[in-house]
Amino acid sequence: MRESLVAAAFQLFVERGYEQTTVDDIVALAGVGRRSFFRYFPSKDDVVFPDHEGCLAEMTAFLRDSGPTHEPVERVCDAARLVLRMYAENPAFSVQRYRLTRKVPGLRTYELSVVWRYERALAEYLRGRFSGRRDGTLQADVIAAAVVAAHNNGLRSWLRSDGRSDATAEVGHALAHVQRVFGPNHAPGGPAQEPGQETAQETGTEDGRDDDVVVVVSRRGAPLWRVVQEIETTLGRDPD
Amino acid sequence: MRESLVAAAFQLFVERGYEQTTVDDIVALAGVGRRSFFRYFPSKDDVVFPDHEGCLAEMTAFLRDSGPTHEPVERVCDAARLVLRMYAENPAFSVQRYRLTRKVPGLRTYELSVVWRYERALAEYLRGRFSGRRDGTLQADVIAAAVVAAHNNGLRSWLRSDGRSDATAEVGHALAHVQRVFGPNHAPGGPAQEPGQETAQETGTEDGRDDDVVVVVSRRGAPLWRVVQEIETTLGRDPD
Repeated sequence: MRESLVAAAFQLFVERGYEQTTVDDIVALAGVGRRSFFRYFPSKDDVVFPDHEGCLAEMTAFLRDSGPTHEPVERVCDAARLVLRMYAENPAFSVQRYRLTRKVPGLRTYELSVVWRYERALAEYLRGRFSGRRDGTLQADVIAAAVVAAHNNGLRSWLRSDGRSDATAEVGHALAHVQRVFGPNHAPGGPAQEPGQETAQETGTEDGRDDDVVVVVSRRGAPLWRVVQEIETTLGRDPD
Repeated sequence: MRESLVAAAFQLFVERGYEQTTVDDIVALAGVGRRSFFRYFPSKDDVVFPDHEGCLAEMTAFLRDSGPTHEPVERVCDAARLVLRMYAENPAFSVQRYRLTRKVPGLRTYELSVVWRYERALAEYLRGRFSGRRDGTLQADVIAAAVVAAHNNGLRSWLRSDGRSDATAEVGHALAHVQRVFGPNHAPGGPAQEPGQETAQETGTEDGRDDDVVVVVSRRGAPLWRVVQEIETTLGRDPD
């Protein structure tokens, strides 16, 4: 019955528009009573995004169960993967909803408010972890926003492929970018290399006398991100 | 008349709730006709955020007028400052609206959709600038989200001070953080220094034989961000 209510709702949202469709319309088309509807869904919105409340609760619990040894940026990336899993569990439904959300402004707005709640959950966790830092709140907000944007970039790639590409790989790639920029042992990707930029400096690397020491020689004018990239390569850290 | 309509609308939103207030209610309280209302505002939402459409248009024009020599991250930060200016021009109104938006979920949702449009405008510009880059779209989306989050972090600090702090300084500080992380010649701040971490490595710096060369010596196990910080200090770039 849950599925038939969702199907009826989607059909009406496309035909009549989201705002113009009432719960009465949905139950009439599905051939069930209003009470049945509200047994499954607290509101009209929840027919379209039936799993977000559960996923938000799961994310909150996941972050609450974090320990001090968890690297904070990695942890919020893992929390974002919980959202992806929800989408990837039901590709056909997720793709259908994505198309509907593009067409119906009311649903787009609802989705924005859901995304905002995920972002707040990530930011709250990071604010706690960064509470001793200068600008901890600012850093937390920026990283949470970056994680959500990267997640959504990967998710959209998958949805636009009609669920045919590898969702985990798409989102994993995007989140790796954020971890590279903000994680503790990673340098920023910096801007992608532009033509001619490489010749603007020379960087040489040379291992020192023992395994503990690395010497980096660089022209003073070299872009800092290129120096960092060179250090990263020398230290043998995978830039991806 | 515009001001009295805004005042009447705010009063009713607080008293009755946003969803429960109609345009008819607003014009009745303000003592004007419906046509007068719609001469000033296209919809009920626009009474609360009367300047966003104009600001979005201004931001779009500002970004469209960018040249190839504009550093992209700096440019989107400057675009974000246009939004701040709109808020800062009318502190009393901005603070009142901030309080109202916290109380009325419908307004919060409307605000999220406005913020999303600003973010899309920044992302579209960056996507264009990064079109030749690997992961250009991803980088554009992440930076746009980071800029918006930083701007809003600074803006909220100012609003929570009831407009008494320095809005330009608050937002400028937040945007400088984003430029430090993503700008072309800046290293990430990395995580703030934690107790004991400093002793985990030794870093020495020594100017080379001529002004072009910097030599950095570091233990292999040193956290990369500390190495970067040291390079930054050596090169004389202000970390703030």
